[in-house]
Amino acid sequence: MDELKKTDRTTVRRLAKRSSYEKATIISILKEGLVCHISYVHENQPFILPHLYAVKNDKVYIHGSVGSFMLRALKTEIDLCFSVTLIDGLVLARSAFHHSVNYRSVVLFGTAKVVESEQEKTEALEALTEHVIHGRWAEVRWPNASELKQTIVLSVPIEEASAKIREGGPGDDEEDYTLDVWAGILPLRTVAEAPIPDPKMDKPTEIPGYVTNYSRKNR
Amino acid sequence: MDELKKTDRTTVRRLAKRSSYEKATIISILKEGLVCHISYVHENQPFILPHLYAVKNDKVYIHGSVGSFMLRALKTEIDLCFSVTLIDGLVLARSAFHHSVNYRSVVLFGTAKVVESEQEKTEALEALTEHVIHGRWAEVRWPNASELKQTIVLSVPIEEASAKIREGGPGDDEEDYTLDVWAGILPLRTVAEAPIPDPKMDKPTEIPGYVTNYSRKNR
Repeated sequence: MDELKKTDRTTVRRLAKRSSYEKATIISILKEGLVCHISYVHENQPFILPHLYAVKNDKVYIHGSVGSFMLRALKTEIDLCFSVTLIDGLVLARSAFHHSVNYRSVVLFGTAKVVESEQEKTEALEALTEHVIHGRWAEVRWPNASELKQTIVLSVPIEEASAKIREGGPGDDEEDYTLDVWAGILPLRTVAEAPIPDPKMDKPTEIPGYVTNYSRKNR
Repeated sequence: MDELKKTDRTTVRRLAKRSSYEKATIISILKEGLVCHISYVHENQPFILPHLYAVKNDKVYIHGSVGSFMLRALKTEIDLCFSVTLIDGLVLARSAFHHSVNYRSVVLFGTAKVVESEQEKTEALEALTEHVIHGRWAEVRWPNASELKQTIVLSVPIEEASAKIREGGPGDDEEDYTLDVWAGILPLRTVAEAPIPDPKMDKPTEIPGYVTNYSRKNR
């Protein structure tokens, strides 16, 4: 298995047995997630913003308006920290202390580079659309020259990253197992509800299968 | 309505019409969220970690092991940025460019203080358990002196914060409305699946109603 090199800042110190540096694990978490949080430093102050992203060719891509304060800061190649967290369930123990959450998270460090090539930029925008909803790009009107000009796309290589994963049931203290408390896992999942058609559709249009069968799993 | 004072770092600049500084709005988003992301600066480097939290008395509380690197850093009262993001749906437009996401997010700035008083610490741990799953605290074994000693609890006042909210359907360019593309909203929601009992329960124990009816809405 392809492992990323551990660095000082990616080395998981707390509960290190939950960590992974396998590229395949990291990429599968990034593919299942929908939104990342990006943090950067501006005038010694940490900032975080939630953002859409895509994963392609061992890079994450983010995009936004050329007017975005964060993207303008990041394109100066300052350090950033990029994080994606999937919550798989609540772990209900007999003691308050041993309650936990099952999760899969990735933390990625690096600097962002502006995607200058028109071709890579368009492919990144395709990847971003497909990351949000697979099957959509083929159906929609693609970005025109003016839209491309208003959009900045940045890439960050998936080189310095780690995953952390907690799975399984509760672990209680030996003497607590006799307590009469329901214990176990409550799995959580993100699901799609019934699609709401835009009232401005002026002819009957069938809801595409990739909308009705939407899932973030197995991507 | 009670509004938080805007500061330079909480003022939303992009799409400012989506912003809110109303305390009630901010607190309702924080109550519905399960996990936050916290960012801080260590040796000029931004770090983010996902974390559980609770909201009580106009503060957010976080807790963890006294060995946690992040909590030890935060308790020196360095600046932090705290963020919670709820994803309500995908906004599917006729053009790739106008795709969007419906979300409600909060960004909070401040510094953390160690909760020293035993009473506030216990109440914060109760709030943390109840934030994860309402109804749980009354049933479980509460923290003992040794567990309290191993746990650090920090509070951050909800004073310098803003919310950003996007809702509603897609807005396309006038000429794209004639395109034969399904457009609308695909609502997303976090739901609980069937609870998985811990095989180590040594007597038949009914699944509590707060587990079977779990929801993050209307908290």
